Amino acid sequence: MLKFGVIGYGYWGPNIVRNLRSLDGCQVVGICDQNPSARKRIEAAHLGIPVYSDYKELVSAPDVDVVAVITPVWTHFDLAKAALENGKHVFVEKPFTSNVAQAEQLINLAEQKDLQLMVDHTFLFTGAVRKIRQLLNEGTLGKLYYYDSTRVNLGLFQHDCNVIWDLAPHDLSIMNHLLEKDAEAIVATGQNHLNGHEDIAFITAYFPDNMIAHINVNWLSPVKVRTTLIGGEKKMLVWNDLEADEKLKIYDKGVDVKNQEGLYNLLVSYRSGDMWSPQVEQVEGLRLELEYFAECINKKQTPFNDGHAGLKVVRMLEAANESLAKRGALVYV
Amino acid sequence: MLKFGVIGYGYWGPNIVRNLRSLDGCQVVGICDQNPSARKRIEAAHLGIPVYSDYKELVSAPDVDVVAVITPVWTHFDLAKAALENGKHVFVEKPFTSNVAQAEQLINLAEQKDLQLMVDHTFLFTGAVRKIRQLLNEGTLGKLYYYDSTRVNLGLFQHDCNVIWDLAPHDLSIMNHLLEKDAEAIVATGQNHLNGHEDIAFITAYFPDNMIAHINVNWLSPVKVRTTLIGGEKKMLVWNDLEADEKLKIYDKGVDVKNQEGLYNLLVSYRSGDMWSPQVEQVEGLRLELEYFAECINKKQTPFNDGHAGLKVVRMLEAANESLAKRGALVYV
Amino acid sequence: MLKFGVIGYGYWGPNIVRNLRSLDGCQVVGICDQNPSARKRIEAAHLGIPVYSDYKELVSAPDVDVVAVITPVWTHFDLAKAALENGKHVFVEKPFTSNVAQAEQLINLAEQKDLQLMVDHTFLFTGAVRKIRQLLNEGTLGKLYYYDSTRVNLGLFQHDCNVIWDLAPHDLSIMNHLLEKDAEAIVATGQNHLNGHEDIAFITAYFPDNMIAHINVNWLSPVKVRTTLIGGEKKMLVWNDLEADEKLKIYDKGVDVKNQEGLYNLLVSYRSGDMWSPQVEQVEGLRLELEYFAECINKKQTPFNDGHAGLKVVRMLEAANESLAKRGALVYV
Amino acid sequence: MLKFGVIGYGYWGPNIVRNLRSLDGCQVVGICDQNPSARKRIEAAHLGIPVYSDYKELVSAPDVDVVAVITPVWTHFDLAKAALENGKHVFVEKPFTSNVAQAEQLINLAEQKDLQLMVDHTFLFTGAVRKIRQLLNEGTLGKLYYYDSTRVNLGLFQHDCNVIWDLAPHDLSIMNHLLEKDAEAIVATGQNHLNGHEDIAFITAYFPDNMIAHINVNWLSPVKVRTTLIGGEKKMLVWNDLEADEKLKIYDKGVDVKNQEGLYNLLVSYRSGDMWSPQVEQVEGLRLELEYFAECINKKQTPFNDGHAGLKVVRMLEAANESLAKRGALVYV
Repeated sequence: MLKFGVIGYGYWGPNIVRNLRSLDGCQVVGICDQNPSARKRIEAAHLGIPVYSDYKELVSAPDVDVVAVITPVWTHFDLAKAALENGKHVFVEKPFTSNVAQAEQLINLAEQKDLQLMVDHTFLFTGAVRKIRQLLNEGTLGKLYYYDSTRVNLGLFQHDCNVIWDLAPHDLSIMNHLLEKDAEAIVATGQNHLNGHEDIAFITAYFPDNMIAHINVNWLSPVKVRTTLIGGEKKMLVWNDLEADEKLKIYDKGVDVKNQEGLYNLLVSYRSGDMWSPQVEQVEGLRLELEYFAECINKKQTPFNDGHAGLKVVRMLEAANESLAKRGALVYV
Repeated sequence: MLKFGVIGYGYWGPNIVRNLRSLDGCQVVGICDQNPSARKRIEAAHLGIPVYSDYKELVSAPDVDVVAVITPVWTHFDLAKAALENGKHVFVEKPFTSNVAQAEQLINLAEQKDLQLMVDHTFLFTGAVRKIRQLLNEGTLGKLYYYDSTRVNLGLFQHDCNVIWDLAPHDLSIMNHLLEKDAEAIVATGQNHLNGHEDIAFITAYFPDNMIAHINVNWLSPVKVRTTLIGGEKKMLVWNDLEADEKLKIYDKGVDVKNQEGLYNLLVSYRSGDMWSPQVEQVEGLRLELEYFAECINKKQTPFNDGHAGLKVVRMLEAANESLAKRGALVYV
Repeated sequence: MLKFGVIGYGYWGPNIVRNLRSLDGCQVVGICDQNPSARKRIEAAHLGIPVYSDYKELVSAPDVDVVAVITPVWTHFDLAKAALENGKHVFVEKPFTSNVAQAEQLINLAEQKDLQLMVDHTFLFTGAVRKIRQLLNEGTLGKLYYYDSTRVNLGLFQHDCNVIWDLAPHDLSIMNHLLEKDAEAIVATGQNHLNGHEDIAFITAYFPDNMIAHINVNWLSPVKVRTTLIGGEKKMLVWNDLEADEKLKIYDKGVDVKNQEGLYNLLVSYRSGDMWSPQVEQVEGLRLELEYFAECINKKQTPFNDGHAGLKVVRMLEAANESLAKRGALVYV
Repeated sequence: MLKFGVIGYGYWGPNIVRNLRSLDGCQVVGICDQNPSARKRIEAAHLGIPVYSDYKELVSAPDVDVVAVITPVWTHFDLAKAALENGKHVFVEKPFTSNVAQAEQLINLAEQKDLQLMVDHTFLFTGAVRKIRQLLNEGTLGKLYYYDSTRVNLGLFQHDCNVIWDLAPHDLSIMNHLLEKDAEAIVATGQNHLNGHEDIAFITAYFPDNMIAHINVNWLSPVKVRTTLIGGEKKMLVWNDLEADEKLKIYDKGVDVKNQEGLYNLLVSYRSGDMWSPQVEQVEGLRLELEYFAECINKKQTPFNDGHAGLKVVRMLEAANESLAKRGALVYV
């Protein structure tokens, strides 16, 4: 039986607790929040589970095996560090840390202490992303041309970061998980209008072999959009995460290039064809993710969404912020 | 009665001829195309109208008052110049010219000769753009925050230009028409996969007062998208040009910022409210545009989509291409 | 403090319990289910609340003020009757009873005992229906022409009733609530394919003054549809309950009829105009309904969705079944 | 070379003429319309083609081989009869005639004179219907359960018939073409609100083997809908004719029925699975239809959409009207 302590009971924390409580082999033995009203909500919903106001008590409690850090990003480093130092495995909300140095330090600490560290890239466990990964692994799309994601809404403003740090970690972690290669350089542009942080931003990531990725994030959109296009040599894919039943559509459409002899020019012709929408497993990604983390801890196995995966995202976020500040300057990752 | 000669009878030329033939006060007195099969199509569809294979004959024909140049962009300069030199008014397909120098030369020539020069920015005459302009002029949206357009499809590849020169002139001409201010600088990224020209590209344009614009163009998308978001302080607008009946939606949604006394921080709160979809006039933009050009010629009045409007778009396209080549470097317009 | 006993913890029962537990002034003091696995789920989720296997014990428990009957329709009469006879107020799942005679008996019993009886027509408490009712009351649509609802999906088959008794009670209760007049006669057609009960059916209800209503229900549709059109003399409304944000759309479109002098015929001309999507309150209808029931009991006030409202729906269901059996024969309600 | 005379140049006639003029082996040698403004439009668009005001002259013109009757339904009989009597093949707009007797008379006359008679059921020649027919012929859907079509819009009111005669011929001709069996009986309900003819109506058609069809037609809908659901034992199909690219979707979803031994009841379980959208040929149905008619005439071959196909639709329309007048009474076809 793995015993979890959860720090942070704001928007996402309750989902962590609910899932952990329903998983066989897991138990929640403490929940911590600085905020008195959050503690009231914990008590109402989770009668019998000890409630903490000081995280130090939770991370040092002897009956805790794993600490879940579900707090604002600028607190991740201190909380995760304290937990690791107390010999606890750590599950930490995305983005992993505020900067690359912090991420590297946590990774080293976990390795020294032989503890598991998982970054909460929940999307990787959804039916849609698992199905896309399967299709890419099977070569269904052929050589990839581009990855283009739009993630916009009239969202909750974060007061401690810009829209890139708030929304793009989803896309970056998904891209890193799906694509075999790493981005080489990043260009980001954007603008702030309200509270000093960019509320709209556009990221381009250059990959080897002419692959290009683009991410459009916006806190000021009147409509919610969660759409990703992936173009490949053989087929093209549209993932609309807001669709209830047909999240993924794979198109037989494409283009063929022929070298026309003697004319020194290329002919591009179009293929059109059927569309196919594979059934996507309807599971709660977070539940699968926590189950997988418990399994990794029990089997002493490194999860694929470990500290290194989290670091890679933070590295790209730092590059994007640097490019943003220089209005589109190319920043190598 | 204004007498038109039309050069170019490929994809768009037939629409020009059809509209001119049905306009009171306009007449088509000659159509020219180098391509024998195009000339056959002209003869079949427009019995009785003289057909030319050599544009020089058409632009020097004494009964021609106006020449419409509906040919690939790299031919615009020579054809328009010849027409102006022969004392003909000129209607020229977008983008105006291949570069800024050509555009400036044509503008000067037209002014010297006291001839009208119109660039075919058809979208400015559609019901949707005219309604958006009216809403912006009335201040319905308040101070503008951003303009974000997606124009993607599995399109006809152009062999003489990249996707920016093919698709972005629509967005740039619309933006220039709708926004009161000019873009200050441009960042563009993109990639080519098939024929040496970029087939996917992303443009950011920085405007004064923190306004930002973004254009996503792509020849390799399996789905067709024609969507523009315009965010303002008071309201936000979504224009989906593929919708048959509800092309425009205006949202009461928005954000309010309050300076919280003593705390040195900003509170951003959300407004949500009704959505409203104004009826958009169902007219063929091209017909209105040609009618307006005839009126401008008759009244010796400069059209708003004149050579200067065309030049502004070419200047932005040049800047975008320069930034693209430097992988996102900021280029001042 | 009103003390509730809940009978039935299948699909819908857990929502009743969850809402009651979070309402001020309400308390759940017992939950009953015949099914051992349901009782296990109750114990896991509601530690500390007494669990019953025999409804007789619950309806006679002295600390119970109100009984909620959330069981299959053929059990409603016996359970509600037992509760009323024990002096308990009753909240009963829709459809109210299996036939008109049962409904009348329960209404009489409740009146004799001075107890409140509410039928769970949850939809009447949703933001969408409340907004439609407001618009109709304000005369926004003018004289009504028709009400046309489609409620289809690949749904859970009920084993004890046909698709009309399963899905149409929603539409019938909404119609009765929204429209000022009662249906005069009903025509129903349909077909069974799998288990002897109709799985697809179509109901027409004739109302006074040429109003007509139509309901399309289907358990065998591959796609889920929840759309209602309401046509009026002044405006027309579309309610798509599956839309996240724009559930209601009101169209200025319509037709005008003019008597053309001397020609003895009618000219019908079309109006087209703006569309408007009012914001709809995002609340859980069931929560509002239970709150309202508690208030009705405390204030000794008859709810609008009382036994008579439930009876009216049952009367229409009986008429529909009778017409269905006679393949479309007109049945007066 | 087949020489066509076309009677009627209102809404649909111009499409007939345009297509005939572009078909090899066909020629339009005369166009007739009583209306002077229609004749003006003919002259403007079809310079050189003789224009008639009196149909008698056209149907007796010696150079005419085929007469196309594109006029209101109540004129079809007289015009088609006159054409046949003059030895012309006849193409007649749907619905074929105003009643069954007229249809039978025309069929007999054509047979006596050995002339071809085609009823313009254009939809049968569209890519969508041809693909659906192919799928049904291949048994892709399995045994059919139901056919449910919605065809509503704010349409042009017909002054000489109700909404059933205006819109349902499309659905009836498609159903008759797709389904192997004939409808046995019809139930129709509806209501008139404006000009004395029903503007909203619902038709149920009972077929052998528990197949059921339903058609919802409405001239007073604020939104346009053209959606047909076809449910089968193996798969289910949705045809949305307003979709540009994905008109057909075939769902692997379905239900399985098992007889549970000893329990005397049926278990219905759900299958869910992939969705597949086959590419639909993008052709103008009318062009294919006219080409096919020319081929039938030349090969002396009876078209599948002949007078008998037209009669079958008229018979169903008559049955629907009779049921409508009796408010849903079952009428055998």
